[in-house]
Amino acid sequence: MDEKVYDDGMSIRREVLGDEYVDNAMRNADDFNKDFQQFVTEYCWGACWGRGALDRKQRSLINISMLAAMGRWEEFELHFNGALNNGCSLDQVKDALFHVAVYAGIPAGVSAFKNARRILAEREGKA
Amino acid sequence: MDEKVYDDGMSIRREVLGDEYVDNAMRNADDFNKDFQQFVTEYCWGACWGRGALDRKQRSLINISMLAAMGRWEEFELHFNGALNNGCSLDQVKDALFHVAVYAGIPAGVSAFKNARRILAEREGKA
Amino acid sequence: MDEKVYDDGMSIRREVLGDEYVDNAMRNADDFNKDFQQFVTEYCWGACWGRGALDRKQRSLINISMLAAMGRWEEFELHFNGALNNGCSLDQVKDALFHVAVYAGIPAGVSAFKNARRILAEREGKA
Amino acid sequence: MDEKVYDDGMSIRREVLGDEYVDNAMRNADDFNKDFQQFVTEYCWGACWGRGALDRKQRSLINISMLAAMGRWEEFELHFNGALNNGCSLDQVKDALFHVAVYAGIPAGVSAFKNARRILAEREGKA
Amino acid sequence: MDEKVYDDGMSIRREVLGDEYVDNAMRNADDFNKDFQQFVTEYCWGACWGRGALDRKQRSLINISMLAAMGRWEEFELHFNGALNNGCSLDQVKDALFHVAVYAGIPAGVSAFKNARRILAEREGKA
Amino acid sequence: MDEKVYDDGMSIRREVLGDEYVDNAMRNADDFNKDFQQFVTEYCWGACWGRGALDRKQRSLINISMLAAMGRWEEFELHFNGALNNGCSLDQVKDALFHVAVYAGIPAGVSAFKNARRILAEREGKA
Repeated sequence: MDEKVYDDGMSIRREVLGDEYVDNAMRNADDFNKDFQQFVTEYCWGACWGRGALDRKQRSLINISMLAAMGRWEEFELHFNGALNNGCSLDQVKDALFHVAVYAGIPAGVSAFKNARRILAEREGKA
Repeated sequence: MDEKVYDDGMSIRREVLGDEYVDNAMRNADDFNKDFQQFVTEYCWGACWGRGALDRKQRSLINISMLAAMGRWEEFELHFNGALNNGCSLDQVKDALFHVAVYAGIPAGVSAFKNARRILAEREGKA
Repeated sequence: MDEKVYDDGMSIRREVLGDEYVDNAMRNADDFNKDFQQFVTEYCWGACWGRGALDRKQRSLINISMLAAMGRWEEFELHFNGALNNGCSLDQVKDALFHVAVYAGIPAGVSAFKNARRILAEREGKA
Repeated sequence: MDEKVYDDGMSIRREVLGDEYVDNAMRNADDFNKDFQQFVTEYCWGACWGRGALDRKQRSLINISMLAAMGRWEEFELHFNGALNNGCSLDQVKDALFHVAVYAGIPAGVSAFKNARRILAEREGKA
Repeated sequence: MDEKVYDDGMSIRREVLGDEYVDNAMRNADDFNKDFQQFVTEYCWGACWGRGALDRKQRSLINISMLAAMGRWEEFELHFNGALNNGCSLDQVKDALFHVAVYAGIPAGVSAFKNARRILAEREGKA
Repeated sequence: MDEKVYDDGMSIRREVLGDEYVDNAMRNADDFNKDFQQFVTEYCWGACWGRGALDRKQRSLINISMLAAMGRWEEFELHFNGALNNGCSLDQVKDALFHVAVYAGIPAGVSAFKNARRILAEREGKA
């Protein structure tokens, strides 16, 4: 493990997903998944998100589009929240979901809008 | 067909993909695919790309990432060229391809980098 | 928007999915998804389903097969109901699901049969 | 192996794909793939295509749509030829490819139309 | 149906998935899915799992990796249990899930670990 | 970068893919892809392949199966060669490709067998 990359990754992960989510993930890690948690933090959040040429909004828009296109709905929820945490407006995420519908097919778009509306309602419930 | 949406779509398509490509596509259209050409121009370039909340660079970054994730390499080539035409820097497309590698798997990233380098070499040959 | 294509799309959508479903979708549309609802009605149900060379049974069989192959299970439910509404027999949808199992893999087939049986039971409960 | 199912499969495979293609596949089979050739003939062409509730045109339309949606272009070529051999009209396969574009995304549709036009030109060259 | 292949398939299926699961599947089969149940048993468990060059652990590791990569989570659950029934250690399935995360993308890995932990907890609850 | 993990990754990568391939990849790396080359070596070959619970044959069988299932044919070629370099027998890779055909669909299996035969012929040509 490169500690500098890991630490940078942990900071970015916390800023994008929120402390509550990350604290929960770390606390629940056990022998079976704790090195995977570390792997994700270092490579995904440190070595990839830590690169310098795109801002976080752009990364979030890329991610929610790819995740919807591939039907990875559990991670879509995480990163849709991340997109809003990173300051994407509702109109921006909506336009990204139109790209999903056109380039990955209407069914991916329909499920993406349905998930997005559920997540938005849950965020309002918490606010 | 909504002529306004179609005309807007045709303008955007020409600006992103270049007149040479679009002239070629229109000239080669025959009975079998000409209504599909029209459909793509109106639906994809007019009704989707014509929306107002994201700029063209952001749309290009979303598209090349989704296309690589889904393994749609013919369209990846088109939109990778479009991303550069829209002003994305090499460092920005590179960072997007890192997201592809991490979120859609290393093999998608490897093929994306390989295609990207071939396209970059071809653009240099033409310049 | 092309109003003629939209209106045709709305008629077809109602005939395939039922008034109850469509009324519900329209009533629940809000600022976030109402233009997407319109987009789906015009392009998917009008410009695609409204074409003339295939009948509705054939379109339904194509759709349930593609949706199962891609693992788009929310939309599979919608279109499996649509296939039965369009008059496909149980033996016909069953044969289509065999194609799914063979061409998209046994797991797609297993999930398709499982979803199909659940939907059939729900339709019997309503009848 | 169930010889009856295998023999039925071989007949259907020959009728759909043509004797030339199947003779070639059988002649080229070696130790590495000959039991796979047999498996495909029995399982795919006998036990699946040999079922009774859909005619061959409908099976072909289902297959070319699924294959394009999944990006299986080698097999798409085979089954697009099969669809025409089975009597599907150009307008019917065109409408199926519109479903691909809408439900599996424009890039799948674009590649499907491009492959279809190449195959049509090759068939004309042979005729 | 080749009765010998079917019977071999049924034995293997019972050994990998457990009698309880298979008895349940057979008892619940109805007119709609009973020939599909037979088809799966003969071709998948007999003609494929019954081949001789790989042991069952190796087949299970291949299957859970492919199923996670393709997002077939219902069948993933079945075969993750099968992998443990076949004697794969926790460290072995964990290493396979690392391959999923790297080759099919982090989101496939995250969902695979999440599903795996739920299944492990359920097995402990039963033990 | 963790130098230890990188160095382990480089050793494993050379042993699996051969010095000729890796030397070529390193020599051709330029500003656009050299940090991606490093990322792949550390993350994929070091942190994933370097784990201890599966031997290299098992990792290769997992990889060729996932790559065929996802249609990543460029990387399939690399890892099919790797599987043979790692000592998998022809009968073992053949059995793995049967799992691909059954679990990811016949078209994935057909393309996998076709690619495999081409690669085997090329290896014989070199030997």
